[in-house]
Amino acid sequence: MIREVTMENVRLDDAFLSPYYRLVSGAILPYQWNALNDLVEGADKSGCIENIRIAAGLSEGKFHGLLFQDSDAAKWLEAVAYCLQNGGALEWEARADEVIELIAKAQQPDGYFNTYFQLTAPERRLTNLYEAHELYCLGHFIEAAVAYERATGKRALLDIVRRYVDLIDGLYGPDEGKRKGCPGHQEIELALVKLYEATGERRYLELAKFFLDIRGTEPNTFAEEYKALDGFSEWSKRKVPMPADYSYNQAHKPVREQTEAVGHAVRAVYMYTGMAEVGRLTQDESLVKACRVLFEDICRQLYITGGIGSTNHGEAFTFAYDLPNEINYSETCASIGLMYFAHSLLKIEARTAYADVTERVLYNTVLAGLGTDGESYLYVNPMEVWPEASEKNPARAHVKARRQKWHHCACCPPNAARLLASMGKYLYTAETDTVYIHLYAQSDMTAELSYGTFGLSVRTEYPLDGEVAVTVKTDAETPVTLAFRVPGWCKGAKFALNGEAIKPVMKDGYAYITRQFAAGDTVGIRFDMLPSLVYAHTNVRADAGKVCVQRGPLVYCLEERDNGTNLHALLIDGETDFTETADTIGGMRCVRLTARGYREEDAGSGMYAFTPKRRTEQELTFVPYHLWGNREPGEMLVWVRKG
Amino acid sequence: MIREVTMENVRLDDAFLSPYYRLVSGAILPYQWNALNDLVEGADKSGCIENIRIAAGLSEGKFHGLLFQDSDAAKWLEAVAYCLQNGGALEWEARADEVIELIAKAQQPDGYFNTYFQLTAPERRLTNLYEAHELYCLGHFIEAAVAYERATGKRALLDIVRRYVDLIDGLYGPDEGKRKGCPGHQEIELALVKLYEATGERRYLELAKFFLDIRGTEPNTFAEEYKALDGFSEWSKRKVPMPADYSYNQAHKPVREQTEAVGHAVRAVYMYTGMAEVGRLTQDESLVKACRVLFEDICRQLYITGGIGSTNHGEAFTFAYDLPNEINYSETCASIGLMYFAHSLLKIEARTAYADVTERVLYNTVLAGLGTDGESYLYVNPMEVWPEASEKNPARAHVKARRQKWHHCACCPPNAARLLASMGKYLYTAETDTVYIHLYAQSDMTAELSYGTFGLSVRTEYPLDGEVAVTVKTDAETPVTLAFRVPGWCKGAKFALNGEAIKPVMKDGYAYITRQFAAGDTVGIRFDMLPSLVYAHTNVRADAGKVCVQRGPLVYCLEERDNGTNLHALLIDGETDFTETADTIGGMRCVRLTARGYREEDAGSGMYAFTPKRRTEQELTFVPYHLWGNREPGEMLVWVRKG
Repeated sequence: MIREVTMENVRLDDAFLSPYYRLVSGAILPYQWNALNDLVEGADKSGCIENIRIAAGLSEGKFHGLLFQDSDAAKWLEAVAYCLQNGGALEWEARADEVIELIAKAQQPDGYFNTYFQLTAPERRLTNLYEAHELYCLGHFIEAAVAYERATGKRALLDIVRRYVDLIDGLYGPDEGKRKGCPGHQEIELALVKLYEATGERRYLELAKFFLDIRGTEPNTFAEEYKALDGFSEWSKRKVPMPADYSYNQAHKPVREQTEAVGHAVRAVYMYTGMAEVGRLTQDESLVKACRVLFEDICRQLYITGGIGSTNHGEAFTFAYDLPNEINYSETCASIGLMYFAHSLLKIEARTAYADVTERVLYNTVLAGLGTDGESYLYVNPMEVWPEASEKNPARAHVKARRQKWHHCACCPPNAARLLASMGKYLYTAETDTVYIHLYAQSDMTAELSYGTFGLSVRTEYPLDGEVAVTVKTDAETPVTLAFRVPGWCKGAKFALNGEAIKPVMKDGYAYITRQFAAGDTVGIRFDMLPSLVYAHTNVRADAGKVCVQRGPLVYCLEERDNGTNLHALLIDGETDFTETADTIGGMRCVRLTARGYREEDAGSGMYAFTPKRRTEQELTFVPYHLWGNREPGEMLVWVRKG
Repeated sequence: MIREVTMENVRLDDAFLSPYYRLVSGAILPYQWNALNDLVEGADKSGCIENIRIAAGLSEGKFHGLLFQDSDAAKWLEAVAYCLQNGGALEWEARADEVIELIAKAQQPDGYFNTYFQLTAPERRLTNLYEAHELYCLGHFIEAAVAYERATGKRALLDIVRRYVDLIDGLYGPDEGKRKGCPGHQEIELALVKLYEATGERRYLELAKFFLDIRGTEPNTFAEEYKALDGFSEWSKRKVPMPADYSYNQAHKPVREQTEAVGHAVRAVYMYTGMAEVGRLTQDESLVKACRVLFEDICRQLYITGGIGSTNHGEAFTFAYDLPNEINYSETCASIGLMYFAHSLLKIEARTAYADVTERVLYNTVLAGLGTDGESYLYVNPMEVWPEASEKNPARAHVKARRQKWHHCACCPPNAARLLASMGKYLYTAETDTVYIHLYAQSDMTAELSYGTFGLSVRTEYPLDGEVAVTVKTDAETPVTLAFRVPGWCKGAKFALNGEAIKPVMKDGYAYITRQFAAGDTVGIRFDMLPSLVYAHTNVRADAGKVCVQRGPLVYCLEERDNGTNLHALLIDGETDFTETADTIGGMRCVRLTARGYREEDAGSGMYAFTPKRRTEQELTFVPYHLWGNREPGEMLVWVRKG
């Protein structure tokens, strides 16, 4: 069985990714701590830590925020844990311990912990899983607890969440007499799998499976809750109409029968991750098959930047090939969830389609989700920015022209923090005597193979350039297979073993080299990194006549700062060469591209004219999408007209 | 002073417009009567007439519909009046009289009439002008009453509305002791001007002026109402937050200081019409000047089809050049209101820019707003239709892929009916000894000039072709000026007087010919009607790289039926010739166009590929926009990529 090469076994020291590692420890953790404590001037109020203090009896006041405000603290704790595991953020351990102590004080005798219900409506706790996010919050605390125990050996938070999980496990389940229900916002499923893997207790896995199995079956547990509550909504505090169906929550049909990614995108990908994990661990081929089908469908609803969720209405998927550029949603959290899903699929089978998505998502949308200062964030990751439209057209109000200090609904910033602090675990998987290399980053890794520990050292500046050297650090005791991912975007990859060109066996986009490797053996790879024009599928109406510039895994964009206003008036020459220039934006290294292009101008006058436009030559400057919006604010554009 | 040449003085017998005249009498009036009486199977319930019966004490039951449900009856009555005036719909006069009798019975002793408040909340009548639409409904009944009296000589409805207006006039006004307020939905302003013109009673004009003068001044009367009602909303029946500002209702600043068209588009253009009318009749240059500025701004927010309202959020204007094609609103009512506004401006000064808008709106969006069967309607007039997106992307749910039988909010269908039944009045204006010809339609007209009656006969198939013959029917007693509009879209107009080519004096887009005309004098005009590619202003980002096909005033579109699916994959050759073919769609004559074009197909595979698209030649078939969606449902596209 394929397994993750966990963070303990990966030491990352990468020109491209490590600055983000350092950003989390050095800037993001302290900034987010301040945000969670309402110490950032001009930022939306959080109240998150204060809510816990109030619930712990250490402060007075009212609950502030959304039903799931607690989860921000959980994600922050998880990020601290990963930073500690990476050897950073040592000064934050004591602060994290304090938060955990607060939670311990706030936890109710029976294990329950949720500041929203404890402080505003204790009598309604665990009655409205559809809306109430209790299991979602618990899921995040489970993830934090597992990570924190792993990083520090401290079990306090793990004990807290296990008591809470035990409460839930006692109440809900397939057995007669237990309640039937499942979360309105999925998350606990994947978290319970982590808890199972951390503790070995199979009932956690069973509980995750139960929440998946019951979802979307009849009688729908959400409909039952609705009736029991007489339609009372925890969100609007009054009776509301019953939803027409539960596709928003992916509970419109049993999970194994779902074939299209629908509804709220974060809920969806968290659930699919849970399905893949439970499917893998219980060897449930029906779950795995559903995951494959859903993944294929997501790929047809995937922005080139790795964004998902074509509409802000319900922060949701729409349908295949519907990828509007002006009004896309592409929530940072949704892309993070998609990374989880693709990563879980890579633990089932090594296919470059999965890692292509992991890479596309990480190197584009996830990194774009935060400013290079670590103190500004995007909830929505735009495909194009027209600041005046964001301000004056309400249909585009969700597309912010600049990163925000914080969000009223602040799920994304700490989610990005925990993801970026744990990038090490997305690079490799291992299976018996095979090591899979999915993402190329300068790092040293070890994996336990059948005979013992095997080590690799990877030296590269990928994706800044396409040269990779993978050196074996230990003599293998049996033939070992190294499986190198050849990215889907790559037009040509050249392999050499100890300086001699070789042609590895290719399967599902991986180059397999089997050999009884000796310490010092080096596989050199050269990926063709030439910038290219990318064309979207013809069914993507929004991209007709347009191209995107991509170099390696990095999607590029035009910004007003480099190219002037009205980026839609620009065209790139379809036959252009690109000039590459090393640059930095916000302190991050990057390769700037210039290309031959044109600007169209009106030849006639008035709104509508019969005179064809005039074209003048204009050199176009492209910068990596993940660094957009880190200079002066202005227009931005990913899909550019081809002329 | 320029004045309208009213419908009594225009006999329309036009190949293009008269079928719509007949459609109103023959199909629309009966169908809408059925709809207003809930007799159309599968249509949204109206309850409109039944509400009046209940209020009249002749039926029992509950009020049904929206706050302004009464206005549908008013617009229907107005449409009946115009049809009667045109000599049609004779069988509907008795039915209209019955409705008027019902209203008389329902009217309260003090003159008040509004079924919503009478049946659901009499105690709150006239307390919430911001939301309650009472003055809006009254405005529509005024328009109906003036039209009905004019058509039939019957004064019953006029007496009803005058009693109601007297009630309002007694309550509201600039005098001390009177209430300060203005309608949340403008309409009564322009209606009061009609009442003034019909009765000569200046206090109606003064009341219209009062409603305009007080609007947007401090203290804002809407804010005062809000406070008095403690925030109670008539729409949501609970306390709601105070609006951030009143731009939605164009009450964010005094009307004379408004320079940008903002907020709800129908409200806006109804108000601007009132401003233009009051400005003209009171010779208030400050009002007229504001109208000119607002008109200019509207022209920058105007779809090529004559649609306004770029967003469904508030059915509203956004800002100059923001004209998204996938999610536009372009409500039929808003375009109708824009016709009113442009027509009112033509009574101030003859400028072809105004008539260009009247024409663009009428021949494209207004006609598109109803099916050729007269029994199906569009509320939103799309710039492109992708049926699957309308169904599955909530951001596009308002863009219906097919006309509807009726609407929950049914303002548009009867508005279209009254507009189409009164088209005669938009053709001509007159002033001293000048006759202005704004729209070309086969018709006979008379106008009172300084010395007496002057008559013209216009023979044409415009806009099917560009030949127009205007024959004077009476000897003029003094030199008379004929001012012929040369449409803004026209690349060349040739004039001849009695067969001899002439070059008239041009001013503001009108060709002036002054002469002591004799009966039989004929001015021949030949407008260049060749189909052309139209380019939008470069600031219109949504139309970059695209062209629209226009022939005369008619905007064309591609439909799936003629061109296959995925219209975005099609390109029109920028150098194409067009072939014209006479055709009919839904019984309406039209000219079909074919052009040289291409279809793009994927050369590579997958969502994102490096291979440029393949192009194959494909002949493109364009049909007039106003006839789209009258055959099989499918995709539709106005702005087409140019290749």
